[in-house]
Formats: sequence, C-alpha cells, structure tokens
Amino acid sequence: MMRTLAIVFFLGTMLSAYGQHTLNSPNGKFKMVFTIEKGRPTYALELNDSPVIAKSFLGLDLLDTESLLAQFQIVDTQRTTLDETWEPVLGEYKEIRNHYNELLVAMEQQGSNRLMHIRFRLFNDGLGFRYEFPEQPNLTYFIVEDERTQFAMTGDHTAFWIPGDYDTQEYDYTHSKLSEIRGKMKKAITPNASQTSFSPTGVQTALLMKTDKGTYINIHEAALVDYSCMHLELDDDNLVFESHLTPDALGNMAYMQTPTQTPWRTVIASNKASDILLSTLTLNLNEPCAYEDTSWIKPVKYMGVWWEMITGKGSWAYTDALNSVKLGKTNYVHTLPNRTHSANTDNVKDYLDFASQHGFDALLVEGWNEGWEDWFGKSKDYVFDFMSPYPDFDIEELELYAQDKGIALMMHHETSGSVRNYERHLDQAYAFMQQHGYNSVKSGYVGDIIPRGEYHYGQWMVDHYLYALKKAGAYKIMVNAHEAVRPTGLSRTYPNLIGNESARGTEYEAFGGNKVDHTTILPFTRLIGGPMDYTPGIFEMDVSKLNPKNKSWVNSTLARQLALYVTMYSPLQMAADLPEHYQQHLDAFQFIKEVALDWDVTMVLAAEPGDFITYARKEKGKDNWFIGNTNDENPRTSKLAFDFLDPEKTYLLTLYRDSKDAHYKNNPKGYAVEKFKVGSRSKLQVYSAPGGGFAISILDVTEQPEKLKGLRRLKAY
Amino acid sequence: MMRTLAIVFFLGTMLSAYGQHTLNSPNGKFKMVFTIEKGRPTYALELNDSPVIAKSFLGLDLLDTESLLAQFQIVDTQRTTLDETWEPVLGEYKEIRNHYNELLVAMEQQGSNRLMHIRFRLFNDGLGFRYEFPEQPNLTYFIVEDERTQFAMTGDHTAFWIPGDYDTQEYDYTHSKLSEIRGKMKKAITPNASQTSFSPTGVQTALLMKTDKGTYINIHEAALVDYSCMHLELDDDNLVFESHLTPDALGNMAYMQTPTQTPWRTVIASNKASDILLSTLTLNLNEPCAYEDTSWIKPVKYMGVWWEMITGKGSWAYTDALNSVKLGKTNYVHTLPNRTHSANTDNVKDYLDFASQHGFDALLVEGWNEGWEDWFGKSKDYVFDFMSPYPDFDIEELELYAQDKGIALMMHHETSGSVRNYERHLDQAYAFMQQHGYNSVKSGYVGDIIPRGEYHYGQWMVDHYLYALKKAGAYKIMVNAHEAVRPTGLSRTYPNLIGNESARGTEYEAFGGNKVDHTTILPFTRLIGGPMDYTPGIFEMDVSKLNPKNKSWVNSTLARQLALYVTMYSPLQMAADLPEHYQQHLDAFQFIKEVALDWDVTMVLAAEPGDFITYARKEKGKDNWFIGNTNDENPRTSKLAFDFLDPEKTYLLTLYRDSKDAHYKNNPKGYAVEKFKVGSRSKLQVYSAPGGGFAISILDVTEQPEKLKGLRRLKAY
Repeated sequence: MMRTLAIVFFLGTMLSAYGQHTLNSPNGKFKMVFTIEKGRPTYALELNDSPVIAKSFLGLDLLDTESLLAQFQIVDTQRTTLDETWEPVLGEYKEIRNHYNELLVAMEQQGSNRLMHIRFRLFNDGLGFRYEFPEQPNLTYFIVEDERTQFAMTGDHTAFWIPGDYDTQEYDYTHSKLSEIRGKMKKAITPNASQTSFSPTGVQTALLMKTDKGTYINIHEAALVDYSCMHLELDDDNLVFESHLTPDALGNMAYMQTPTQTPWRTVIASNKASDILLSTLTLNLNEPCAYEDTSWIKPVKYMGVWWEMITGKGSWAYTDALNSVKLGKTNYVHTLPNRTHSANTDNVKDYLDFASQHGFDALLVEGWNEGWEDWFGKSKDYVFDFMSPYPDFDIEELELYAQDKGIALMMHHETSGSVRNYERHLDQAYAFMQQHGYNSVKSGYVGDIIPRGEYHYGQWMVDHYLYALKKAGAYKIMVNAHEAVRPTGLSRTYPNLIGNESARGTEYEAFGGNKVDHTTILPFTRLIGGPMDYTPGIFEMDVSKLNPKNKSWVNSTLARQLALYVTMYSPLQMAADLPEHYQQHLDAFQFIKEVALDWDVTMVLAAEPGDFITYARKEKGKDNWFIGNTNDENPRTSKLAFDFLDPEKTYLLTLYRDSKDAHYKNNPKGYAVEKFKVGSRSKLQVYSAPGGGFAISILDVTEQPEKLKGLRRLKAY
Repeated sequence: MMRTLAIVFFLGTMLSAYGQHTLNSPNGKFKMVFTIEKGRPTYALELNDSPVIAKSFLGLDLLDTESLLAQFQIVDTQRTTLDETWEPVLGEYKEIRNHYNELLVAMEQQGSNRLMHIRFRLFNDGLGFRYEFPEQPNLTYFIVEDERTQFAMTGDHTAFWIPGDYDTQEYDYTHSKLSEIRGKMKKAITPNASQTSFSPTGVQTALLMKTDKGTYINIHEAALVDYSCMHLELDDDNLVFESHLTPDALGNMAYMQTPTQTPWRTVIASNKASDILLSTLTLNLNEPCAYEDTSWIKPVKYMGVWWEMITGKGSWAYTDALNSVKLGKTNYVHTLPNRTHSANTDNVKDYLDFASQHGFDALLVEGWNEGWEDWFGKSKDYVFDFMSPYPDFDIEELELYAQDKGIALMMHHETSGSVRNYERHLDQAYAFMQQHGYNSVKSGYVGDIIPRGEYHYGQWMVDHYLYALKKAGAYKIMVNAHEAVRPTGLSRTYPNLIGNESARGTEYEAFGGNKVDHTTILPFTRLIGGPMDYTPGIFEMDVSKLNPKNKSWVNSTLARQLALYVTMYSPLQMAADLPEHYQQHLDAFQFIKEVALDWDVTMVLAAEPGDFITYARKEKGKDNWFIGNTNDENPRTSKLAFDFLDPEKTYLLTLYRDSKDAHYKNNPKGYAVEKFKVGSRSKLQVYSAPGGGFAISILDVTEQPEKLKGLRRLKAY
C-alpha cells in the first residue's frame, strides 16, 4: 500500500557557524530555524517569511536528576527528504502524500554526557517535531517531571479553546483573544462527570488560533503512544504556550526507557482556513498500518438504542428497585422491572427492523448488561462484567434476529473508568462478542479512573486505550472509544479505531445544548487527530417531546444535522434519533441513507472557524459526491460551483436545505428537498439559516438515466 | 467435609439494663463485654477473669460523611453457638474444631439512621470480631478514611514487633516493651526494595505480646478480602493500639458497598505460649473451601535454582552486556551471555537429577525468562512477559527431562510490582504453565507497585493477590506468593495458596543475616495467618564459600535447619541449598527427604517466643512422627517424652542434633545423627547449641522390623 517515491539521506554533521540550522518545507513556504542559545535548544517557525512560532525553548525537566533543558551542544545533524504516498484503509482520501524535509539534531548535554535528539519534519502543511532519546550509557530510565516545550505566539491571537483538563474534553469552545483566556476560564469549565482542570490559562489541543494577519495555526500532537497527553499552558504575559502533560497519582508525567521518544508536537499553519482542515500531517507522523489483514475493517453506518436514554425517555437500568448492585449476587430475575428499560428485546427488534429496512450496517444497544442501577460515581471496581445481559435482553434471540435482518449488533462496553476490571474481562468480552456476532464495540470511560489518582489522559490510561485497541484487533473487532484520550492520528496505524468521542458530542444537545457554532470549530480542532463519533442526525430538536422533564434543545436545524455526515469526517456514523422521528421525515432521512462514509477525494469549498464549513467529498470507488455545510448563528448564502464533476456527465443532485424561515431555535424543521440535474459547469446558491446548513448528494446515474427525467438542470448563474 | 455438630440460635433482642452484653467462650475462660458508652461502642476481653483487652472503642471514620464512631444505639442482638469440625485440604491437623459463641450487635446511628453491626465470635482460643454493614437505605457506598478499632493494653507488655509498613514485612523482629517501640523504631527499619513506614509507633500484625503476668496475646486479622491490610499504631501514652489501614494513592483506606463487612480482627490469648501456636481461630474465621475438586492440591517438597543467585554465585540475568531490555525488541540470541546465568538447561538438569534421585516433588527455576537485566526499581511497566525463556533455557527439553525424572517444574513469575502487566499476561502465562507441565508457581512482587501510589498491602493489591489465586485455581495451579500481603487464613478457602513469604525469610541470611532468634518468633507471628515459604535447609552457612564477595553468614546450625521443616509449618517446603552441599551431608539430608509436609496431629512440646520452640507432628495418614526444635543464642537441653506414640509399637527414631561444640557462628556444621528404638515410655534429653536445634524422625517400621536391629532402645531416665 505504501509507495515510496524518493528517499534522500544527507548524513553526517552539517554544523553552521553559529549553531543555526534551517529547514525548509518541500514547497519552500515554511522555514524552521533551530538554534542552540547559550546551551538551550530553540526553534522558530515562519510561513511565507512571517513568524508563526517565535523563538521557543525546548527541553524537559526530569525527576530527581538534572533537567534536559540547557548545556546542550550539537554533536551531529542529519537531513532527510521523504516523498511517498500511502493509502489509508478508511479515510478522506484515496491516497495521502507524505512529503517532508527532515532535520535530526543530535545533542549532548555537557557535564551529564546525556544525548537528546530532536527530529523536525517540515511538511507543506506544517511542522512536526519530537524528542528522541537514543540508547546511551548515561540515560536509560528516567521520569519526566515536566515537558518544557514552548510555542511562543507572535501576537494576541484569537483562539478557539476548551479548558485544559486531565479527565475530560467535553466542553464547549470559547472564542477569545489569548489574553482573555484567564478571564474566561471559570465560565468555560462547565460540569462534567469527571474533570480535573489544572490552570487558569491551561487549554487543550488541538488548539486553533487565528492571527490578526489571517494566519490559522493549529497546535496538537501526533502518535501519542506510551506517554501522557499534552495540554498547553499559556504564559499570558509573554503569550508563550508551554506543554503541560497529564500526571499520574504521584504527579509524574511519564516513565521513559531509552531508546524512546515523545509523541510528535505539531504546528499546522496556513493563511487559508481550508488548509487546516485538509492537513494530513497528523496521519503522516503516525506509523503505517500495523495489521496485515484489514479486510474486516469497514465503514459503519449505525443506529442505536441510545438517544432515548440520553434524553431521559428511557433508561439504561432495568429496575428502579435497586440502589446497589453486586454482580453475580444481585438477582434481576426476581426484581421488579422499571418498564422504562430501553434495551429490551422487543424494542431492539423494532430498531433492527427499521435499521435493516433502511440499509444500515449496525445497531448499537446500550444498557443491555447488568449493573446500570449504580454504575457511576461510586469508585466501584467490579461495576460491569460485559457478559451478563439483563433478563429482558435475549442475546441469543437478537443475535439470530439481527443476522436475519443483515444487521450487525454493536457492543457497548461501559467501563465506568474501572479499567482493571475491564482489562480482566477483555478477552472473554471480545470472545463473547465474536460468539454473538458483534464486530464493533463502543467503549466508554465515564467517571473518575480506578485506580484512583490516575487520570483519563495520563500515560497509564494512554497505554490502556491502545492495549484494548490492539487486543480488539486480534479479535477483528472495531473500536469506538468514548471518553478516551483525544486521537492523535493513531487510526493510521490501527485502523480498527474507527471512532472516538473525545469532545463534546451530540449527547450534550440533550444535556442543555451545545453552542450553535460548535460544529464549525470541531473539524479545526478535535478532528485534526482523527474521526469523531459525533452521533448526528437528530430530527426532533425539542427534547421535551421525548421526555417532558428535559427542557434541552438541539441547537441545529434539521438540514444541518444532515450536513454533519459530510462535515464531521468519520468512517463510523450514527443516525442517532429515534426511528419514529425518521419516519416523519423520510425525504430528509434519504440523505443519511445515501451518504458515503469512506472517500477518494475531500475538498473544502468554504471554511471559517466559528462561522461555517462546507466540504465536498467523493465517495470511495464511485463517482458520487456529497456536500455538507454547517453554519453558525448568522444566516448565510453559499455559492457553489461544481467544477470538480466529470465534465462528460450529468448527475442527479439532491439538495437538502433550510427553508427561508428556518431557524435552529424557532423553526429547526423548516427544510426543503429538491432535485436537479447538475454538471461540471453548474452553479448553485444555497441559503443556510441561523444554526443551519445544507446537505447535497450528487449521484452518478449514468446507469439509470431515467432518474434525471423531468429535473431542471442547474446552470451557471 | 464439614460436620456440623450443633447450631443453636438465640434470636431477638436481649438488651441488658445498661446496654452491656457479655459473651463467654465455650469453655468459659474468656469473657467479652460489649457496651455502648455515650453512644460509642466498646468491647473488653478477659481471660480467667484477668483483662486481656481493656475497654476499647470501635468504629470507623468515613470520607466526606459523618463518622461511624458515636451516637449508636443497639437495635438488636443475636446470639449463636457453633460447634463443628472440618477437614483442611492440607494442614497441621486432620480435623479442626470450629467452636464458638457468637454475639451479633446490631446498632443504628442516631441522626444518620445508618446501621452498623459488630459480630463477635468467642472461641476457646480467643476472640474474633468484625464490622458488618447490611444493605440499608442510608448507607450504600462509602469510603473508609480510617478504621478506629482499638486494642487497649492493660500494661507495658513485652512485644515482638516489626515496623508497620505499607510495602514490606521483611524485617527482623524487635523484642521490647511497648513503651520502647518509639525509641527503637528507627533502628528497626532496615532497608528494603520497597518500603513505606508510616508512624514511629506503627507495627504490623500478627503482633505477639507477653504480659508481666505471663499471658501471651496475639493480635491479627482473618479473612482479609476486599479491604486493606491492618497495621496497629500505638498510643504509647495510654498503651492503646488502634488499627491503621493501608491507604491507596489518594490516602483512602477502603472502598465499600453494602452489604459488606471488614475482615475479622482477632485476639488470641493464653497463659501458655503453646496455645498461641496451636490456635485455629484464624482458619476458623475464614470461609470453607471454595473448590469442589481439590485433588490437584498437594504438598510440595522442592528444590530450586535459586540459592546460587540469592548468594550472588550465579545470576538471574542471562547477560551483562545490556543495561536496558525491551521485551520483544531486545535480541538475546545475539547478545553475549554472562556465563553466570544459573537457569541454563545443563544446570537445571543437574538439579533435576539430584532432586529426582532424592525423591523431591518439584524444582523451582528462577531467572528462566527474559528481562532480568533491568527488572527492578525502574517503574518499568512491561518488565516480564512470563512466557519467553532465555536462549539457554530450553523449556521443551526440560519439560521432557523433568517428566522423565518424575519431577514437576515450579514456575517463577516475578512481577516486579507491575501488576497490570502481570494480570494482562495471567491467562496466557497459566496456560503456558499447563502446556509445559508446571503445576505450581512462585510469584513475586519485588519493588514499588505500579500503578504508582498503590501499596503492596492496600485494597487494590489485596484484590489482585486473590484474583491471581482464584484464576490459578481455575487452571489447577498452586500458588506461592512472595512479597504479597501477609496471610490471614485464606488458605482454608483457597487451599491452592500453598505458601507465602510475607516475612523475612532465609534469603536474608544471604543479605546480611537474620537474628538468631528469628525462627523462634515467626510461628507466633507470621505463621498465625498461614504457611510460610521460609526456604530452609541451608547446610553451608558461610556464604562467601559460594560468592567470595558476599560476607553474609547464615545464623543457624545445620541441625536447626532441619528442625525448621517441622517448626515452620508449610505444605510447601524447599530444600534451599545447592546439591553439592547436600552431597557432603547426605546423612543429615536424609531428614529433609523423609520429613512429612501434611499432618494429622500437631503438638507443641515446648515454646517460648524469642527463646525456643519444639513441635511434634504426626504425618498425615501414617504413624510417623517428626519433631523439630529451634533455639535462640543460648544453649539449652530439651527433655522429651514420647507418650504420644502408640504404646503397642516400637519405632525407629533418628536424631539429628547439634554436637556439644556446635555453635551457629563458630561451628554450625557440628552435628550428629543417631538412631534408636523408641516407644511411648521412652525419654530423651537433647542439647541445642547457640543458634541450634534438633530434628527427629520417628518412623513406624512395623513392616520392616529389621531396621531396628542393633539399635539401643531409649528408656525413661
């Protein structure tokens, strides 16, 4: 799958007179300058001769031994160029070009004689660098007390940020100047099931910024393996970010054994917002696919017995008669059922019927297993066993029923943060899945981690998520991990990681709502690391219609809900609403049925973080295109050209748009579905309502020309 | 196996006028008085009308909620008597009588309306009590911040104590007045691979004390399950001990969910030292055997490729050319071997030859698996995989060889405290054992626990040890866990726990030595909870003979080494020295070959803690007896009568004794082996040298009367 076009090595020492080393991107637009300043390594990054990262210091504090910050001298440098293309198993592109110039700076610390390398890779979309610690006599095991990587900003940029937190990313984005972060932090920290903020200027990556000159800068990390997750802490006097890792119970950040390295620290930058969205740097900095056979890894379009519990219409728990469960001791069979338990065989069958009828791949069922009566917030070790269905969930019957309907059941493993318990059951639980025909699992880590003192984003847990993922791979199981650490491109290496939550998803629309512009920011931030299981497709925005006690409102129009299948890239997509709501809008539902999940081409037609994003994507292996636009609270009209279409063909375009009177609050269901003939020279203006958007399918109907009959052809304006 | 003789229930409330409840032991010698004093529960214990425990308060501090210490009133009491006998799978007795009077005090806390029960069981050998928390509306989940169980002493007793520590019990005993503990603590805390002391008056259980009036008191716990291990902290102004539990990383002591209970707190007391040794209270307070089939659980007499590494003659590590190993990456095949690696195929075969020739059951081999080059003290997570032999350890060849020799290989699983890594490999590692013919495992937990912040004796680890033990049970594997939490009688419930270290064992004789009286104390303390893998049988006391750099000296005579097989009860016994040393003393070695490991009768012929212990035990199912005496630094002569023998028979007695000029320092190998005819009316005086002792076998030779030919008959003096 990988095709190496050219690898050129420039080996040996190339010391410049002043210890300054310059690295240019292949297209020459980026320039990175590395220097040793009084023994301290620094770097700076320019784009088109303008600074993106001002001179910033590099290094680490180690526990109980001298820091790796100063007294360095360069002992060697190596330059490399790579230009290759590779094909992702699932993705936004048929091929991805991995093209960079590399500078490896080998340094030795005077006095301690310890070696530290910094490897820089400069792509056309940005910079990646990491610390490397080769095998050496004077440094074998060490403990990172603090990583001291700086990202010095060149001005008081506008940032789209969420509070730094060791345990959750489920925050709405705040849009502010860097200097305003401190003042806005308290309000930004909204309640969560598990949360540990650490600083009034601490924020999470991927962090998106925009300079006054219109440059977009994204800081994140790639290939987070055997290390703790990085946050950024702002020195707001100097506008310098410094890395802030996630500690363990003792306050230590990472345990290292040479030869080893940190994850990549990444800076993606461009004067075009769309380039941030199209960046492939994060994937390119990850290792190639670790699996020989990937035939079992497929896109998954799914429904779920889920939204009814999220909204409070139904329950995960089987009974209200227990406030304490002991697995293996609690006898559910003789316990009064609450009759609100959603994961009952009949209800699941109804979902299966609907999902099958409409061509879905899978059905998630949450709350199927014993323990949900007191699963959360109790520091309960043995909280679930992942193998004991409730009495009203007939797993054998549903296995056969689903098989008959051509639907895979999607397993749900909520760990409640009790990860030792999960790992103890993992083999059996995966084998149980295989036995009952499940080929994918949604895992969850709600609540504080057990062992207590560990955090969701510490090295201990980072190791766990990968352990569970690799073990799933051994069982040919695809994983969709919620509340796990934010992705950093690992889906390249382990493409069975088909989704992650790791951000504030649609569920919060039933917990009080998301900000209207939320989905215009996520692709610039959270999605830089990998796909998100955002669970869109809500057609009934008034949550009180499901549960009169829940006054939440989904802050989106129905048309925008469709757009999210295109704007929120994921090979795993859920139609999250209830079948009865889709039944009422089968014309709109048609888009969800048709939309592809895996792509040969991805383009950004328009994008501005916090305002709007419009993507166009071409279905993998087919000449079908899908377009999505998500819009903030301001109404907008998009002008679309279709010059990416085959000029020889006429396609069937279906437009799912907001009506003129649509509004995410007042009239979210105001939408229209229209069909047109469309060619490469066609143009179209589409209105997006406040909190709205649109979705478009453009199907190759060459084999079914009758489908175009009677349709108006879209012309150039 | 269990035969219930009588169960009598006295149900209902039996409140006395002053809220005082008295419980007597079946023989009437013990009296326990429970009172509520101004809302605070108290108890006191008397033996023969003399106070053993003065009035002591009971209760617990809970995290973030009102303590369970005061404001209690009794809502119910229940009295029960049980008199049953049961047969241990392996043990010191054919049958054990479980005979107690029980008082259950049900209390409600005023205001909070929470229920707490205290269950007292008074046996003829002492008291057990525990807190119980029934299922109730106002108390479901709670966190124990401190257990506040008091044991108020009635005077400044003499104690045999080791420092309280969350991570190790591997200390020599200090013999002092209670009031002297504080002053002697610092010196008592000798270095260990992992240690966390917590208080200048903190000591461990089982704690043995002797009052000025000659009463022996032992405080310990029984059935430590899903709770943290208890220490005792002395208020030395008032001579009151209070329970001090082992915290987790957050400082919390235990996480509880009702219905639940604490382990039993035990007070064994008698005016005869021997009664402490013969107490079965700890086992009786544990649950019956959890396994239906116990046919696979057998006594194990074993040798080991071990002492040569302990002394430094050989090495666990295969190579000295690496100071850093990454499992799966480090290629040992191309690494220079150090030639001191003991676990090589040829050396193991030599041990197998010897062990087979002399009728052993098993051979332990440590250092057989990759990783020993940097296994310890590095906070290394993936330290061993328990399945990758070194290149010079041919596991298939040795499997066949051992099978041919009729010896089972004993597996070694050193976890280095990295318990998540161990649990991840447990199933595969046990299956690997089965595949290669291993039916027992010595597990080790050397070094600080990972996850960091957890301790060896906290609830998290207590849960782990039991998890590993039960899982081993599923594979029909016997477990001998070193550095694990001290035993509390769980071998009754899980008899595949055939041994534990959990104290300072023979290995310390090669690490600078043990105190000469060490083995006269351990049976009164450490062994109260269960068998110890003390690994006796050292014949060469001058460690420098094995390793010139190691100046340690084994503080024992050779004869005493034999005695330990009888005085240190264990169904698992090692002959720890090298074959070449046994070859030099085959006459003495004969005792190790003959001594039984499982018993029908156990008697204590003489005992004084810190001075001497003499046991006589009758082999299970046979009419053979074995006697052992261990002696402190003072010479002593024991007068033995053999009235326990069948008066109808004449037996073959073999005496293994110190010579008159023997001395643990100057002449440890001064010993004599003598054979006599012996009958029930025979008597014998035997000399024990300083640091010496003796061993005696008394064999039923009814079927081989020729063995008695020419032997002198021991007469009454």
